[in-house]
Amino acid sequence: MIPSQPLDRLLWMALEEDLGHGDATTEAVISSDATGRAIVVGREDFVLSGSYPFQRVFQLLEPSTLVASRFADGRRIPAGVPVFEIEGRLPVILSGERVALNLLQRLSGIATLTRRMVDALAGTSCQLLDTRKTTPLWRRLERQAVLHGGGHNHRFSLSDGVLIKDNHIASAGGVWSAIERARSAAPHTLRIEIEVDNLEQLREVLEIGVDVILLDNFAPEMLVEAVTICQKRALLEASGGITLENIRSIAETGVDFISSGALTHSARAVDITLEVYPQG
Amino acid sequence: MIPSQPLDRLLWMALEEDLGHGDATTEAVISSDATGRAIVVGREDFVLSGSYPFQRVFQLLEPSTLVASRFADGRRIPAGVPVFEIEGRLPVILSGERVALNLLQRLSGIATLTRRMVDALAGTSCQLLDTRKTTPLWRRLERQAVLHGGGHNHRFSLSDGVLIKDNHIASAGGVWSAIERARSAAPHTLRIEIEVDNLEQLREVLEIGVDVILLDNFAPEMLVEAVTICQKRALLEASGGITLENIRSIAETGVDFISSGALTHSARAVDITLEVYPQG
Amino acid sequence: MIPSQPLDRLLWMALEEDLGHGDATTEAVISSDATGRAIVVGREDFVLSGSYPFQRVFQLLEPSTLVASRFADGRRIPAGVPVFEIEGRLPVILSGERVALNLLQRLSGIATLTRRMVDALAGTSCQLLDTRKTTPLWRRLERQAVLHGGGHNHRFSLSDGVLIKDNHIASAGGVWSAIERARSAAPHTLRIEIEVDNLEQLREVLEIGVDVILLDNFAPEMLVEAVTICQKRALLEASGGITLENIRSIAETGVDFISSGALTHSARAVDITLEVYPQG
Amino acid sequence: MIPSQPLDRLLWMALEEDLGHGDATTEAVISSDATGRAIVVGREDFVLSGSYPFQRVFQLLEPSTLVASRFADGRRIPAGVPVFEIEGRLPVILSGERVALNLLQRLSGIATLTRRMVDALAGTSCQLLDTRKTTPLWRRLERQAVLHGGGHNHRFSLSDGVLIKDNHIASAGGVWSAIERARSAAPHTLRIEIEVDNLEQLREVLEIGVDVILLDNFAPEMLVEAVTICQKRALLEASGGITLENIRSIAETGVDFISSGALTHSARAVDITLEVYPQG
Amino acid sequence: MIPSQPLDRLLWMALEEDLGHGDATTEAVISSDATGRAIVVGREDFVLSGSYPFQRVFQLLEPSTLVASRFADGRRIPAGVPVFEIEGRLPVILSGERVALNLLQRLSGIATLTRRMVDALAGTSCQLLDTRKTTPLWRRLERQAVLHGGGHNHRFSLSDGVLIKDNHIASAGGVWSAIERARSAAPHTLRIEIEVDNLEQLREVLEIGVDVILLDNFAPEMLVEAVTICQKRALLEASGGITLENIRSIAETGVDFISSGALTHSARAVDITLEVYPQG
Amino acid sequence: MIPSQPLDRLLWMALEEDLGHGDATTEAVISSDATGRAIVVGREDFVLSGSYPFQRVFQLLEPSTLVASRFADGRRIPAGVPVFEIEGRLPVILSGERVALNLLQRLSGIATLTRRMVDALAGTSCQLLDTRKTTPLWRRLERQAVLHGGGHNHRFSLSDGVLIKDNHIASAGGVWSAIERARSAAPHTLRIEIEVDNLEQLREVLEIGVDVILLDNFAPEMLVEAVTICQKRALLEASGGITLENIRSIAETGVDFISSGALTHSARAVDITLEVYPQG
Repeated sequence: MIPSQPLDRLLWMALEEDLGHGDATTEAVISSDATGRAIVVGREDFVLSGSYPFQRVFQLLEPSTLVASRFADGRRIPAGVPVFEIEGRLPVILSGERVALNLLQRLSGIATLTRRMVDALAGTSCQLLDTRKTTPLWRRLERQAVLHGGGHNHRFSLSDGVLIKDNHIASAGGVWSAIERARSAAPHTLRIEIEVDNLEQLREVLEIGVDVILLDNFAPEMLVEAVTICQKRALLEASGGITLENIRSIAETGVDFISSGALTHSARAVDITLEVYPQG
Repeated sequence: MIPSQPLDRLLWMALEEDLGHGDATTEAVISSDATGRAIVVGREDFVLSGSYPFQRVFQLLEPSTLVASRFADGRRIPAGVPVFEIEGRLPVILSGERVALNLLQRLSGIATLTRRMVDALAGTSCQLLDTRKTTPLWRRLERQAVLHGGGHNHRFSLSDGVLIKDNHIASAGGVWSAIERARSAAPHTLRIEIEVDNLEQLREVLEIGVDVILLDNFAPEMLVEAVTICQKRALLEASGGITLENIRSIAETGVDFISSGALTHSARAVDITLEVYPQG
Repeated sequence: MIPSQPLDRLLWMALEEDLGHGDATTEAVISSDATGRAIVVGREDFVLSGSYPFQRVFQLLEPSTLVASRFADGRRIPAGVPVFEIEGRLPVILSGERVALNLLQRLSGIATLTRRMVDALAGTSCQLLDTRKTTPLWRRLERQAVLHGGGHNHRFSLSDGVLIKDNHIASAGGVWSAIERARSAAPHTLRIEIEVDNLEQLREVLEIGVDVILLDNFAPEMLVEAVTICQKRALLEASGGITLENIRSIAETGVDFISSGALTHSARAVDITLEVYPQG
Repeated sequence: MIPSQPLDRLLWMALEEDLGHGDATTEAVISSDATGRAIVVGREDFVLSGSYPFQRVFQLLEPSTLVASRFADGRRIPAGVPVFEIEGRLPVILSGERVALNLLQRLSGIATLTRRMVDALAGTSCQLLDTRKTTPLWRRLERQAVLHGGGHNHRFSLSDGVLIKDNHIASAGGVWSAIERARSAAPHTLRIEIEVDNLEQLREVLEIGVDVILLDNFAPEMLVEAVTICQKRALLEASGGITLENIRSIAETGVDFISSGALTHSARAVDITLEVYPQG
Repeated sequence: MIPSQPLDRLLWMALEEDLGHGDATTEAVISSDATGRAIVVGREDFVLSGSYPFQRVFQLLEPSTLVASRFADGRRIPAGVPVFEIEGRLPVILSGERVALNLLQRLSGIATLTRRMVDALAGTSCQLLDTRKTTPLWRRLERQAVLHGGGHNHRFSLSDGVLIKDNHIASAGGVWSAIERARSAAPHTLRIEIEVDNLEQLREVLEIGVDVILLDNFAPEMLVEAVTICQKRALLEASGGITLENIRSIAETGVDFISSGALTHSARAVDITLEVYPQG
Repeated sequence: MIPSQPLDRLLWMALEEDLGHGDATTEAVISSDATGRAIVVGREDFVLSGSYPFQRVFQLLEPSTLVASRFADGRRIPAGVPVFEIEGRLPVILSGERVALNLLQRLSGIATLTRRMVDALAGTSCQLLDTRKTTPLWRRLERQAVLHGGGHNHRFSLSDGVLIKDNHIASAGGVWSAIERARSAAPHTLRIEIEVDNLEQLREVLEIGVDVILLDNFAPEMLVEAVTICQKRALLEASGGITLENIRSIAETGVDFISSGALTHSARAVDITLEVYPQG
C-alpha cells in the first residue's frame, strides 16, 4: 500500500511546470467545450510502464476524462499498436499531453531496457537489481518500471538497507571496524552488505561475517573465484560496467545479483505519440 | 532573476526521497563529528552543468560545508580532472553524495550531448533549440544545461509561446481558422508559430501570415525548398529525427532553428565519481 | 486548460485565514445539522465576475453544498436581482460567507470598472488591457475579471512577454543596445515591446525595429502624431493616467491598445450581500 | 510575536506568480552582474505602510540587497520625497519591483484612507475599527496598515471573537436563544457581541446582557438614542455606510467604535514609483 | 465549521511517516487484491474519541474502504465490545492500522481521563477545562477529545484569549501596568484574564477590574477565601496539581473553572486492537 | 545525517498552531523591544531529551535569540537544576515558551521512562526497543528520546523492516506461505521477522528459517523454553505487557530484545518550567 498523495503532488507540480498560468495556444485556438478522442501509439516496440501516472495526469486536470488502458504494465507492445484511448474535452487532452507522455516515454524506456537485460539472464538464477542512480523525485515510479521490465529492486533509500561502500570503509578506518559498528548500531531489521574491491577483502569480510557482499568492478574470472571462495556464506552482488553484451557471462559466474545504474540513469526514452480525433 | 526557493524545495524533496528517515549506514559506521575532504572527478570527458544544485545539496544539509568549484558551467572537463572539492563533516558528504551526483551526471550529460550537436553546427547561422520533452520538475535546470552546452531555449511552458501543432489544427478545423483564432485571442506579447507537414501547408500558412513555422520531419531536400519558398517571411524551425550525423546537413539548408527532444529526454548520464579522504 | 489545484490551494489558505481554528459564533449559536438557503444579491448594478471561486469556497467546506448560479460571468446584474442561491448546512454557509463575498465583491468590482471603460471605447478598434498591477496571488482571477468586463489581458508574468521599460533602457545603456540584446537573447516565441517617452525615441525604436511600442504618458495630440509616424510598422499601446473621462479621446488617436493599472489596483468593491433563510 | 514564515511563504508565492520561470526582459537585456541604486518616491502625499514586505521581497530574491528605509510605517510622506533607497544587483531590483510596489501601494492606500478617517475623529473618544472585508491572504498586513493609519483592529478571524449577526439570529431562532447559546457554549475567554437593527432589539439584548452591541445602519439620531438607552451597560459599535463626510457626526453620538469595510476593500492604491540608477 | 483540509494534510503526513516508500511486509506477503474485514475492540473500558480521524485514515488510503462506526464519540465502551468494523482491501487495512490506532488510542485516552475527572465534579457547577499543554499539531483533535469526555475548552491559541501570566506581569512591571495595557491594546472582542499567586494579588486585580482570574496552585482553603473575596466580580479558574483525588474538593470551593494540563499531556493511551478476517 | 527541513516544517506548523495570528497577551502587555533572560528548570528529576527542538523553536521565531544548553541529551538532571538559559527579546521568549516546553516535557518524559526500564536491565545482554506506537508526526524525535534513555530503535516505518504479524499470517494463509512470500519478494537488504503466539508456531518458523522471531505475550517460563528451543538459530524479541516490575525477569530468560509501546504512547510528561527575568 502506497499513499497516493505524494505522487499526486508531484504530478500537480509537473503540470504547473508545463502549463504555467495556462496553455496559450489551446485557449486561443480551441473552443473550451470541444470534445474528442485521442489514441496513444508507440513508434517502436517497447515494454509498457507508467500507465498509472499517464492516466492520472488527465484525471487530475479533469476527473471526468476517460483514459482506457488496453494493456497491463510490463507487457511488450509492438510498434503501431494503440496503448491508450482517451476521451474527453480537447483542451484537457492537449494541455496534459506533454507531461503524460514525458513520464510514459521515460518509464517505458526503463522497462524496455530492463526487459532486454533480464531476457539475457534467462535460465540463470541471477536477479537484476536497480540502484539509487534514479531521477531525483521519480524514484518510486522508476523502480516500478524496473519491476515491470522483470528486474528487482535494491534498497529504496539510505534508510532501508545497510550498504558499506569504499568511502564508508575509508571513513571508518577499515573493514573490520566498519562491520563491527554496523552490527552493533544498525537496526536489527536490516541486513548488512559491504562492498569489496578484491579477493583479499572478500576473504576478510567473510571471516568477519556479513549478509551480502557487493563485488564492484570484478572481471568475470575474478567473480568465478569469488563465488568459489564465498561458499554461500553470504549473498553476492556484482556491479560496475554492466552491458547487454556482458551481463550473461557475469550471471553465469554464479553471483546472486547484478545491479546496474544505467537501467535508470541512461535508458533512452521510447518514442510514443498521441493523436487527436476531434468529435463531429 | 529566478527565485531560489522553488529549486530549494525540489532539492529538499530529493534529499528526503533519498535519505528517508536517515542514513542507516553512515549513522552506524561513521562518527557523527568525523570530518574530511572529497574530490569529484569525471571518468570520461564531459561538459560541466549542474554546479549550483550540486553545491546546494551539501549546503542545505549543512550550511558550513565548503564546496569549491574549479570550473564554470559550460566548460569542457577532461576525464580525471578534479571538478569540485568538498570539505566538511563526513556524514554530510556521504549522505548528500547520491542526490548531488544524480543531478550533476544527468545535467552534464545533457550539456555534453548539446555541445556535440552545437559543434556540428559550427559556421552555420542555425541555432540548436531544446523542447518541452524534459524530465518533469527539472525543466529549469535541464534548459540551463542546454545553454551550458551552447544551445538555445524554446518556450519554457505552454504559457510563453503559441505553437499550433497538428493536433491543434485538427481540433480547430484547419490551418486558416487556427491562425485566425490565435491572432485574435492570444496575448499580443507572444509570437505565433505553427507546425506544417508539407510544402503545400507551408505555402498556405505563409499566405495567411505567421511569425514562425515548424517544419516537422522534412527531409533535407524539402527543407531547402521550404527555405526558398519562405523568403524570410517567417522564421523556420526544423524538427524530427535529429542526430549527430544529420544535424549539419539540416542546418545547411538555411533553416533558422533546429529543435531536438533527445537533448533532454535521452542524453546518457556522465560517469562522475566522488572519493572521500577522511581527516587525520 | 488551467490546473485547478493552485486555485484550490489559495482558497483553502483564505479559508484558514478567516476561520482560524473554527467559527466561534456559529459553533456556539447554531446547531451543526441545521440546514437552510441563502440568497446573494447586489445592492447596486454591477458586472458579475468570480462565480467559480464563490461557489468553490462552499464546496471545499462541504462538497454537498449546492450553489446555483443564475447568470454567467460577464453579465450585467441590476441591483436587487438574486445572483446565487445556496442550499446546505447553515454552518457551512455562515462560515464560508465572508471569504466567498470578499472575492466576489472585488472581482465584480474589477469587471464593473472594466466594462465602463470598454463601453467608452465602443466603435473604436482599440482594446483595453490590464497590467501586472494586480493583487498579489490573485492575478489569474483578476485577469479573468478584466475579460469578463470586456477587456483584454497583457502578459501574465515577466516570463511571457518582453517589455523593455525606462529602467531597463537606463540599465542597458540606451535604446539601441537594449533592443539588440533582447533580439539575440530572448526566446524566439516572444514579441519585443519597448516603452518610449517622446516622439524622438519613438522614431529611434521604429528605425531599429520592434514589435510593439508602449507610449507612456503621451498627451492625446502627441499620440496622434505617434500614430502618424508609426505607419503600422509596430503595434502601439498607450498608458498612464487613463480615466473614464479621457479614455475615448485616447482611443480615437488610433492606438491599438490602452492599458490601465487602475482596473485592478483601485477598483471599488461591489456591495453584495448574502441573506440566510433557515429551514423549517 | 508573529511567526515570519507564513509571510515569507506568501511573498515567495507572489514572486513565483509574477516571475514565472524567469524575467525574460531583464535576463535578455541586462548583464546579470550589473549593479545600481533605485529610489522609491510617491507621486502624491500618503501615509506609509508595507515597509517590511517591500524590503523583504528584495531580500528573499537576494539576501545581500540593501533596502534603506527613511521613515517608519505610519508616517505621512509628502509627494516627491524618497522613501526607500535600494542598492544591489539590477536584475534583483528590476525583477522584484512589481511585487514589492503592488504591496506597498495597496497597504499605503489603506493607511492613507484610514488616517483621513481617523483625523476626522480627532477630539472624540471614538475608535475606528477595520472589518474582515480584507483581501484574502493579506489580512495580517492590511490590519497593520489600519494600525499605521491610526485605526484599531476588530477580531482577526472567526475564532477570536463572538459576533452574532442577523443571519445567526435568524438561524438560532431569535435573539434570546442566540445569546443564551453563545454564553453557555463559547469559550469564556471571548466577549459576546451582537448585531441589532433597531432600538427595540437593542433594549432586548441589553435586558439579556451582552458585552458589545453592533448598531448596523443606524441614522445618527437613532445612534444618539441608542447611546442614551445603553447607559454604558455594553460597548457600542456603529457600522454601515461610513464615509469621510459622515464619520465625525457618527462619532459625536457617543458610540465607542465605528467599523468600516471600505478601509480595506475599497482603498485606492497610492501612486508610488521606483527609479533605477545604474552604476558607473 | 472547520476546514477539513488541514486535518487531511496532517493525516497524510502521518501516513507518509509510517509507510515510508511502502509497506515492505504487506507488499511481499499479501496479494494486492485480497479483501477482508477487520474488527476494532478495546481491551479495557474507555470513552471513545477519534472516530473521524480513525475512519479518515483508511479512506485517504483508499476511498472505497468502508469503516462502520457503532458508537458516537463520547460514549463509554466496555472492554471487548467491537467499536468499528472495516471492510476493504487487506493491504489498505494493514498499512493504515498503526496510524489509525495510534490516534484512536491517544484521543480515547484523553477522553477517558477527562470523563473520570468530570464525573468527580458531578453535582457541582464547576467546569473542567483543558490547557495549551497539548501534543503539538494535534491540538484540535485533543480539544475535541476533552469535549467528548465532558470537559470544556480554554482558549485554542495565543490569539483568542488574553491571559496575563506571572511572566507577563514581571515583564510588564507589575499587575497594574499589565492590566492597563491589556485593556487599551487588546482587541475589544477578548476578555481579560490574569493569573494571581496569592490573596493580596487577588484583591489588587479585583480592584483594577478584570474579567477572569486564574488562581494558580492555591490550596483548597485559600480557594474558599478567594471565592469569598471575589464576590462574583470576576470568573475564577483554579489550576495546578489537579488530580482525581483532589478535584472534587477544589470544585466545592465554588470556583467557576478547574484547568488541567495532565488531561492532554499525560493521559495513558487506551489499549485497542484491530483483528483482521480475510475473505473466503 | 538527517535533513533539517522536515523538522523545521513541523516546528513552524506547531508555532502557527499555538500562535494563531499573533500572541494577543504579549502584544498588548509587553513592549516589543523589551529584552530579558529566562531559566528552564525541572520540578522533578528527569533524563533530558529534546534540547534541539527546544532551542530551535526560539531560533525560528528570531534567529538572534540565544539558548544556552548546560547538559547533553541523555543526562540525568536533578530537580531544580537549570537546564537552559535563554536570552533575547521577551516577546520571542513568551510566545515560543509553550511549544518549546510541550516538546521538551514529552520527550524528556519518554527518555526518563526508558532510562528506568533500561536500568532495570543492567547486567543482562538484553536490549530495550521502542515500537511504531509513537505520536504521529513526532516519531523521529521520540525515537531519539528512546536512545537518550539508553534504549534502542526498532524499524522506523513499514519500509525498513519486514515484520510478519498475526494479521499478515491470517491474510497470507499460514506461516509457511507468509515466510516463503517474504523471502522471495522482500528486498534482499531487509531481515525477516515473524510474530509467533506459542511454542508450536515457534518450532514451525524455526524449521522454515527466519532472521528474527517476535514472541508476543509469552509468560516468562514460556520465554525460557523458547530460548532453549531456538538455540540461537534466530534473534528473539519479547513483547506485550512489559512493566518496570516484570522487565528484568523477562530479560533474564535470555531473549535478545524486549520491545515496549508504552515507552512512547504512555510516558508521563516531565514537569518543567520556564521563568522570565526582564532586563533592567
